[in-house]
Amino acid sequence: MTETTIVKTKDRTPVAVTETMKALVYRGPGKKALEDHPKPDITAPTDAIVKITKTTICGTDLHILKGDLPTCQPGRILGHEGVGVVEKVGPAVTAFKPGDRVLISCVSACGKCDYCRKQMYSHCTTGGWILGNTIDGTQAEFVRTPFADTSLYPIPDGADEEALVMLSDILPTGFECGVLNGKVEPGSIVAIVGAGPVGMAALLTAQFFSPAEIIMIDLDDNRLEVAKRFGATTVINSADGNAVETIMKMTGKRGVDTAIEAVGIPATFELCEKIIAPGGTIANIGVHGVKVDLHLESLWDRNISITTRLVDTVTIPMLFKTVRSRKIDPKLLITHRFKLDHIMDAYETFASAAKTKALKVIIEA
Amino acid sequence: MTETTIVKTKDRTPVAVTETMKALVYRGPGKKALEDHPKPDITAPTDAIVKITKTTICGTDLHILKGDLPTCQPGRILGHEGVGVVEKVGPAVTAFKPGDRVLISCVSACGKCDYCRKQMYSHCTTGGWILGNTIDGTQAEFVRTPFADTSLYPIPDGADEEALVMLSDILPTGFECGVLNGKVEPGSIVAIVGAGPVGMAALLTAQFFSPAEIIMIDLDDNRLEVAKRFGATTVINSADGNAVETIMKMTGKRGVDTAIEAVGIPATFELCEKIIAPGGTIANIGVHGVKVDLHLESLWDRNISITTRLVDTVTIPMLFKTVRSRKIDPKLLITHRFKLDHIMDAYETFASAAKTKALKVIIEA
Repeated sequence: MTETTIVKTKDRTPVAVTETMKALVYRGPGKKALEDHPKPDITAPTDAIVKITKTTICGTDLHILKGDLPTCQPGRILGHEGVGVVEKVGPAVTAFKPGDRVLISCVSACGKCDYCRKQMYSHCTTGGWILGNTIDGTQAEFVRTPFADTSLYPIPDGADEEALVMLSDILPTGFECGVLNGKVEPGSIVAIVGAGPVGMAALLTAQFFSPAEIIMIDLDDNRLEVAKRFGATTVINSADGNAVETIMKMTGKRGVDTAIEAVGIPATFELCEKIIAPGGTIANIGVHGVKVDLHLESLWDRNISITTRLVDTVTIPMLFKTVRSRKIDPKLLITHRFKLDHIMDAYETFASAAKTKALKVIIEA
Repeated sequence: MTETTIVKTKDRTPVAVTETMKALVYRGPGKKALEDHPKPDITAPTDAIVKITKTTICGTDLHILKGDLPTCQPGRILGHEGVGVVEKVGPAVTAFKPGDRVLISCVSACGKCDYCRKQMYSHCTTGGWILGNTIDGTQAEFVRTPFADTSLYPIPDGADEEALVMLSDILPTGFECGVLNGKVEPGSIVAIVGAGPVGMAALLTAQFFSPAEIIMIDLDDNRLEVAKRFGATTVINSADGNAVETIMKMTGKRGVDTAIEAVGIPATFELCEKIIAPGGTIANIGVHGVKVDLHLESLWDRNISITTRLVDTVTIPMLFKTVRSRKIDPKLLITHRFKLDHIMDAYETFASAAKTKALKVIIEA
């Protein structure tokens, strides 16, 4: 359903004219286009229409473009992160009004189902991660956000919008799936496998809890260099296959208290299995496409936990406060900026991170 | 080192005579014997010598007899469960004295190492599960128990010794590794895969927390019948391969909040993966000999936890109190009783559980 404007013609017969906007549209595996697309309108009383001011591209968007996510069909506007200004709200929306500056959660939460009532918004029975997946997303001039009262967050005056775009998905993902699930605590030894944007988000937010060591493991020396600047106490390029040995030596053969998997392939998950100390936690963030070998023959008696999680974004308000109090600077993650008109270039830059050294790119609508 | 008595001969020359006792000795894969064996003596100041009054056989003893545990070498007295009376203590033991009735934990805890300080006794750097494994065990008239102050528990007057033998290992194992790790809570749906003694211990102790349903899954109809008597609300014989379908139907396609794996083979662990609800916990108790397939391609976004644990026996005091207040009756697990002289028969009965319907057997020394 799209917004229409009633235009009175000379002979006074009203004619419906559909308004359009620019949007990045998925056109099937390997294909995307910046297109003119009908502007969205309210379709449910709990909806809001938000004029996007800033959005970004996620690794998940690249997965979609590879054809990895069958839930996302051709014709879909991509994007599930962003900030903007409320343009219009449905009659059931009471927490926001037109003109309000808002942060959009990547997860839409009805706030009413069993899962939402226990703050497991990721599994909301009518929402969850639907933006830029099963409904049109944020890489556009406007987006329809369902369940606005419980899926948008007000942006206080003076807040830096670019920093807050990082709170739609990437920071809560690193924090909730990696740091909180991984039970990072003062004095503990943390290993993060994968120094991509989500691994970096885990690195930044792990420091809230003052671990003794944060070991960052990756194959890309540039990213490891960045990780060092972001607070990693040790960086290991695992290309030589000696990462396990190095870590066991560093930890007196004990292993690490928390191993955060931020890649999503068997090799990196199994690396976590090898370096986890008795009593430790492997916190999986990676999006996996295939099964992994779980070596219970050596882990059954190690008193370990393994966790998985689709981000619930329940920590957005908490992260907001850490940004305001300067405990964290999410803008560190931003490496490139583009106008929406150049979003195709932005995708190119983001997808070629090894070459361009991109972490997160900001798209200004 | 063995206890000796100085016997004065007629010509008054002292001669050392080693005292002996009956003990069940592992003699290599497939072999065991009830033998006369030197009586143990204090070898460290923190030791106690306990005269065993009652002990039992564990599934782990059968694993040893199959040759599955290379840490346990031929010549070893088996057994890691039991109650008895303190006969002698080393000079550093202050919490117990000769004559005290005690429960022996299957896990010896020095109480001083990093792991013991955080109550992870199973990983005590000089103890852990060593009784009947790397040092002589409890299937004998006497046993040397290391770290007596922190590995023995006083038995109050009037307490039933048979019930308390179940607290050396089996009940804390079901409770700590299954119920506590599995986060069983009021109103939740629990599935226990495997209705052997440890699954039954999980079934009994899960009821402390008032779950709404406890589904017991096994291949043995007799054990399922027993599980029903012990409080299972639903029993499923998984022989027909429909267990997953049945459980998903029962739970409105959601799955169970807690899945307790009490077998230790890939098929049963993977069954748990299939029935776990979003947000749920798979608590592994089983002793696994081979890796399992972890289907992260379907579990990465399900917000689940998987836990492993070697029992720490930290809940022995808590379980003691539940026995005294009749919240639980561990004697339900006892199906057969033997004298130590007939321990070979006891093994036969325990190893043929499908035929004999044995759960736990009591050996009276």
